[in-house]
Amino acid sequence: MKKLRPRKEKIPPLDERVLRSKKAVLATTYKLLSEAGLGGVSVDEVSKRSGVAKTTIYRHWPSRSALLLDACAKMASKPEPPETGGLQGDLEFLAAYIASRLPTALWASVLPSIIDAAERDPQLAAVQARIHSEMRNVFRLVIERAQQRGEISRSIDSAELIAAILGPLFYRRWFSREPLNERFVKNVVARAIASLRPS
Amino acid sequence: MKKLRPRKEKIPPLDERVLRSKKAVLATTYKLLSEAGLGGVSVDEVSKRSGVAKTTIYRHWPSRSALLLDACAKMASKPEPPETGGLQGDLEFLAAYIASRLPTALWASVLPSIIDAAERDPQLAAVQARIHSEMRNVFRLVIERAQQRGEISRSIDSAELIAAILGPLFYRRWFSREPLNERFVKNVVARAIASLRPS
Repeated sequence: MKKLRPRKEKIPPLDERVLRSKKAVLATTYKLLSEAGLGGVSVDEVSKRSGVAKTTIYRHWPSRSALLLDACAKMASKPEPPETGGLQGDLEFLAAYIASRLPTALWASVLPSIIDAAERDPQLAAVQARIHSEMRNVFRLVIERAQQRGEISRSIDSAELIAAILGPLFYRRWFSREPLNERFVKNVVARAIASLRPS
Repeated sequence: MKKLRPRKEKIPPLDERVLRSKKAVLATTYKLLSEAGLGGVSVDEVSKRSGVAKTTIYRHWPSRSALLLDACAKMASKPEPPETGGLQGDLEFLAAYIASRLPTALWASVLPSIIDAAERDPQLAAVQARIHSEMRNVFRLVIERAQQRGEISRSIDSAELIAAILGPLFYRRWFSREPLNERFVKNVVARAIASLRPS
């Protein structure tokens, strides 16, 4: 005869409790980021506000940077790769997507504090690099597809093309603080790809 | 007979003492900015390190923002307007000047903390706007000259052209953290002005 084992269903399984507290910690971190930027996030404050013990937080995230990385990854804006059939259409779609989110998205108001911290902290520089590469990968994908279709040369430097598009958008959002209207976004893409066409 | 008046030369005149303490305060502010970014600058700390009383500091600068504005203005990079005889040469000169300073200049490592603070503080947003307009004005000048020479149309939007040049430079310095080499800088200018030429 088999031994009776305690039924796991009676109390929430460990996994579920772990998930629940991880979720609370991330939500609190996210909220603190939105209120005061990176400077407002300490493990102490996250623990106090979420009700999750510091030891538990450190069990899941070995450092404040690791916690920030997770919270920021949640925050990053990742559009689905469009398939308009042409490079200009795809890039216009992506640029318009980002331009529409830049003025109000939480990540857009928090990013300067991550960039500032990254100037002095290599761990936060790694957080920033990951956020950025996620945004950049979708641009890289549509450029590679255009190269595979033979629409543009395979020798085109996709990093330069991406700089020519994201650069002016970011510039207006964080440096000159000018409006990111539809005409500007279309002109940015047109200017970026003008040099790719055979003349 | 004339009364004898105390000779002013014996003790430093008031103006000179004022200048000396203002200079000490600005130098200390500048040093604190370079060490820890904007977050490291408080009037308390500036007073402690410079030896100038807080009341004296507040007599010259009504607020921390006013002090930061003065220290940052000192810091901003203002190239002399070039006269290469053509728009492309002028813009290449300015872009190369800024690209050469971005990797190491103090203002370049402090600017993200000003931008971050500007997200939440209108006074610091004004500081940022002033730093930025000083950098932008020299670009505007060479574009206007090209318009006066008839090299490009007077209908060209100089703000868009400046975004197409400063955008990719700033993007590489603070977002993608890729190298700002000579080839990249030349390509940025070429791409920005390609669309201005009659096709």
